[in-house]
Amino acid sequence: MTSTDIDAVAAPTARLLQELTQTTGFSDATLVASAPDTIRLLAGVPDRSALPTDAFARAYGRLQHDPDRLIEGFQYSNAQGIPELREWIATREGVSADRILVTAGGQHGLSLVVRAFVDEGDLVAVDNPIWPLFLGILELKSRNILPIPVEADGIDVSALEQQLRAGRRIRALYTVPDFHNPTQGSLSEEKRRHLVRLADEYGFWLIADNPYRELHFGERGLDTSVFHESPNTVHVNTFSKTLGPGLRLGWIVLPERTVADVVRLRNRNDSQTSTLTQTLVAEVLNGEPAFFDDNLVRARSLYRSRAEGLVAALDRHLPGAFETTVPSGGYFLWARLADDSADWQELYARAAEHGLSYQPGAFFASGPGTDADRHLRLAYGDNTVERIDEGVERLAAAYHSLS
Amino acid sequence: MTSTDIDAVAAPTARLLQELTQTTGFSDATLVASAPDTIRLLAGVPDRSALPTDAFARAYGRLQHDPDRLIEGFQYSNAQGIPELREWIATREGVSADRILVTAGGQHGLSLVVRAFVDEGDLVAVDNPIWPLFLGILELKSRNILPIPVEADGIDVSALEQQLRAGRRIRALYTVPDFHNPTQGSLSEEKRRHLVRLADEYGFWLIADNPYRELHFGERGLDTSVFHESPNTVHVNTFSKTLGPGLRLGWIVLPERTVADVVRLRNRNDSQTSTLTQTLVAEVLNGEPAFFDDNLVRARSLYRSRAEGLVAALDRHLPGAFETTVPSGGYFLWARLADDSADWQELYARAAEHGLSYQPGAFFASGPGTDADRHLRLAYGDNTVERIDEGVERLAAAYHSLS
Repeated sequence: MTSTDIDAVAAPTARLLQELTQTTGFSDATLVASAPDTIRLLAGVPDRSALPTDAFARAYGRLQHDPDRLIEGFQYSNAQGIPELREWIATREGVSADRILVTAGGQHGLSLVVRAFVDEGDLVAVDNPIWPLFLGILELKSRNILPIPVEADGIDVSALEQQLRAGRRIRALYTVPDFHNPTQGSLSEEKRRHLVRLADEYGFWLIADNPYRELHFGERGLDTSVFHESPNTVHVNTFSKTLGPGLRLGWIVLPERTVADVVRLRNRNDSQTSTLTQTLVAEVLNGEPAFFDDNLVRARSLYRSRAEGLVAALDRHLPGAFETTVPSGGYFLWARLADDSADWQELYARAAEHGLSYQPGAFFASGPGTDADRHLRLAYGDNTVERIDEGVERLAAAYHSLS
Repeated sequence: MTSTDIDAVAAPTARLLQELTQTTGFSDATLVASAPDTIRLLAGVPDRSALPTDAFARAYGRLQHDPDRLIEGFQYSNAQGIPELREWIATREGVSADRILVTAGGQHGLSLVVRAFVDEGDLVAVDNPIWPLFLGILELKSRNILPIPVEADGIDVSALEQQLRAGRRIRALYTVPDFHNPTQGSLSEEKRRHLVRLADEYGFWLIADNPYRELHFGERGLDTSVFHESPNTVHVNTFSKTLGPGLRLGWIVLPERTVADVVRLRNRNDSQTSTLTQTLVAEVLNGEPAFFDDNLVRARSLYRSRAEGLVAALDRHLPGAFETTVPSGGYFLWARLADDSADWQELYARAAEHGLSYQPGAFFASGPGTDADRHLRLAYGDNTVERIDEGVERLAAAYHSLS
């Protein structure tokens, strides 16, 4: 009898798998039927000109002259990350390298944090609107969420405080403090201090997810040091938006008291982040010390011109149709439909027919009490100003075709 | 009031973290106080000469002449893996590319499989002795294990069958079929078919972890096709032992019925495996089609000579002290102390004093009923024959110093 002769009894998958919901709209947006040559103002991804393909070639070349280091890159390494990379990150963050855990990107960092700090069914406060993939991660532990409104200057900390004062208890809070996804604003200095105080007063985890912080269009970025002063704050970061998401490389600044435990959990999950990727990136960063910032200066200027180009195109092709604020950083314009009677679902469908794809704001709502569905999230990072302008022309055609 | 002025309430970590046990001996073995210039017959790692540092440089060079592909390597990719890598793997495995999930290495593959297929507290049958880090992974879901003896030709399938016939029910079984870690033997053809039949008859998951399969010293490796014929068998693999563990790159051959679910879980865990690593490895494999096998032919010959050298050194320096079988593949010699009164703990400590480190067999027991503690696991992959010989001389000095 061979194994194929019997009527096999199918072993069941884990309840966790059986119970995963489909992610709402968001990740299916790319599947909407769209015309050929569709313009995708769709995703938060770097422009190809900002990706350091040549710097990596130079770094590999230098490592070939240092064979012991290159060989080390092909071997096992420590679960927390290689020292030369952790030290570069720690210097930039203004913390001890002992607090840096190198991850396989932002999503990996967030899933690790959720597993380390959230128990099954715990109540977790979240941005509303929110980057919806966080809910997909959180669902591995809990679906019990407390949506907190996001204002022009970030999450509404007073609304959270009211709930806490009224006796509501949360295990953690998730927010994107800098150049929020999708609402483009940043948490004010005062509100981020207030939020950290609440985390310390009530003993919940503040999960600050900060992928866009380096993409500031002004002279300097926002002060994130307050996230490093609390025993309850984890600051999740990534190289995805600066060196490229395909690297799958990021880090977490952890409170000292948690480092050993989280590293242990990480080790059992996936051992360590690719030593070769870490070695290459450390060589890019340390071998050409000006490269990272020089590259960022060019990238910020590029994204700023595209953000301004997008707002100007909306003013030109659809005057008065949207309420907009020129972004001060990040990848997204959170444009609000001025006409409250405009049908966003019809607009989304018509835009696809006209060869334009974007994420409708409704995909980002984490609960009621938001006007997310009156918005379009328009991503401008990976299209030229000319192509953005053509995209907005298509949006205008779709808009004017609304019944 | 700043955040540091208040007496912060420390948020609790997750129960999962609080309850993780320390891994036994195994991972602490590297911390045993040892003399300078210690010879480490310690770990299952490739020799530096087998690591493809030049092939990666050539692959990167070729990609620089194909900028669109190189740029893609720096961007997001599909959670299941890039097609050109999945297709190469699928051809080698003799399955459809739809069944291949690219992972971030063997440990990542195993932790994903455990989360996808095992519920909290489920009974899982495991090798005894076992690669103990699997128990560290399993503990994220369950500590309820059923140790099954491992014989010279692999796990004792009849012993498992007796338990099943007697009514014992398991959710999964974990074994290393080819060149077992630590016992060096391989599961016979008949036993692997028997094991798959039992998985299908009783509806449990057969987790076949196969990192060493390519390191066979004979003409060809063992037939693994039976693992691909069952709806209940997952075949976990890695490039760690062939191209280098620092890549963190591996794959799972999944039953068709599970692919979509496991990919969804993986996506929420860490999005995808580094696109750059996948692109580079695919270019190494496809761009120089003979390289992978040519490199393996050299590596197998090297490891075989070291395995033979190790056994010869034991015969020369410690005649009669150990019962050994010349390995037919893999990285490990599972040497049994011939003298049942010899104190393995004292030997281990004396060896460290003499500048030799290895893993004592006791670290690998998963339960009672094994003579694992009468063994030494001696790894020969990453030391020259001369150095291995010197290591065995040190072992002889330690052995003769036993009280």
